[in-house]
Amino acid sequence: MNTTELTRRLHAIRDTNNWQRFHSPKNLAMAANVEMAELVEIFQWKSEDESRALPADELAHAGQEIGDVVLYLLLLCAELGLDLDEVVRAKLADSERRFAR
Amino acid sequence: MNTTELTRRLHAIRDTNNWQRFHSPKNLAMAANVEMAELVEIFQWKSEDESRALPADELAHAGQEIGDVVLYLLLLCAELGLDLDEVVRAKLADSERRFAR
Amino acid sequence: MNTTELTRRLHAIRDTNNWQRFHSPKNLAMAANVEMAELVEIFQWKSEDESRALPADELAHAGQEIGDVVLYLLLLCAELGLDLDEVVRAKLADSERRFAR
Amino acid sequence: MNTTELTRRLHAIRDTNNWQRFHSPKNLAMAANVEMAELVEIFQWKSEDESRALPADELAHAGQEIGDVVLYLLLLCAELGLDLDEVVRAKLADSERRFAR
Repeated sequence: MNTTELTRRLHAIRDTNNWQRFHSPKNLAMAANVEMAELVEIFQWKSEDESRALPADELAHAGQEIGDVVLYLLLLCAELGLDLDEVVRAKLADSERRFAR
Repeated sequence: MNTTELTRRLHAIRDTNNWQRFHSPKNLAMAANVEMAELVEIFQWKSEDESRALPADELAHAGQEIGDVVLYLLLLCAELGLDLDEVVRAKLADSERRFAR
Repeated sequence: MNTTELTRRLHAIRDTNNWQRFHSPKNLAMAANVEMAELVEIFQWKSEDESRALPADELAHAGQEIGDVVLYLLLLCAELGLDLDEVVRAKLADSERRFAR
Repeated sequence: MNTTELTRRLHAIRDTNNWQRFHSPKNLAMAANVEMAELVEIFQWKSEDESRALPADELAHAGQEIGDVVLYLLLLCAELGLDLDEVVRAKLADSERRFAR
């Protein structure tokens, strides 16, 4: 994933639509959370086994919601001055330290 | 972001800890959502302006929660047979079609 | 709020539709959370000031989502053997102890 | 549940602590959502069957989170000029119309 390129394209959409005033970190975190809940909604009445075998349309829907979440996180990172790749790597390294045996 | 490498390392942690039985898509979506809410919590009582100027410790905390969300989304994509990079690109292309003027 | 009466009516709907098998506490918590995110969605791009002055249609929508959340919490409490009124009173008493000066 | 009495007591805590400036509907919806996610967290790695048989300490914890959610919804309703009892009844009546057979 080339986060720099993705962010540049997201900012082009934002600027074309004059959305910058909406893109406070507070609002972007809320928006990412709302998209995440739309992902959760796909699974809410399914058993765990059913969640492992989504029909094609629901799988595509899940992919779209996951995409939405990551796009909002990219916008959020840009506003916060964070690098998405870097924060993910730092957290993974932390998990490796804590959970390796 | 090299999603293949990150996923391989996440699966190593999972297998070392015998967590595979917990990693249904349903559960991973819930876990990603819970981490997302921990991100939202950072902003809940802040004004939008304050959210643009987080103190260093809260900024670091935000980065950790963003990292957690993406790591769970990587695990979720692996279980669903989706490629995170691909779903993000597809969603961005869709947004470009809908919101370009 | 007469939680006993409300729960009895919710159970009548559940039984008429044969939904009992879906109503594990895990699923009901997810469903309540999804409705909550639909409430949050109303506010995500609004300023705090705008959130204090919702147009009538959005105010009605907010009321519906709040209603949905509470109905799922009533169903959840019934499955868990908790009394909604009691848990709310206990939490409020706890807050009074912690935050009175 | 006597929502009028509960709201009066919540407002007393709020005023004692000078929290009114934080209590925009936007913020209160976020806070309710964060508490809801803490409820979801209890269930995230449990099977549905396990969620039906919580240990006593986790059941008590669930009750506290449910209480927190409802208290924030009461504060939110007060700010929006909505009556919690009324919105719950309206939504239930709507469900009865839609899902009765």
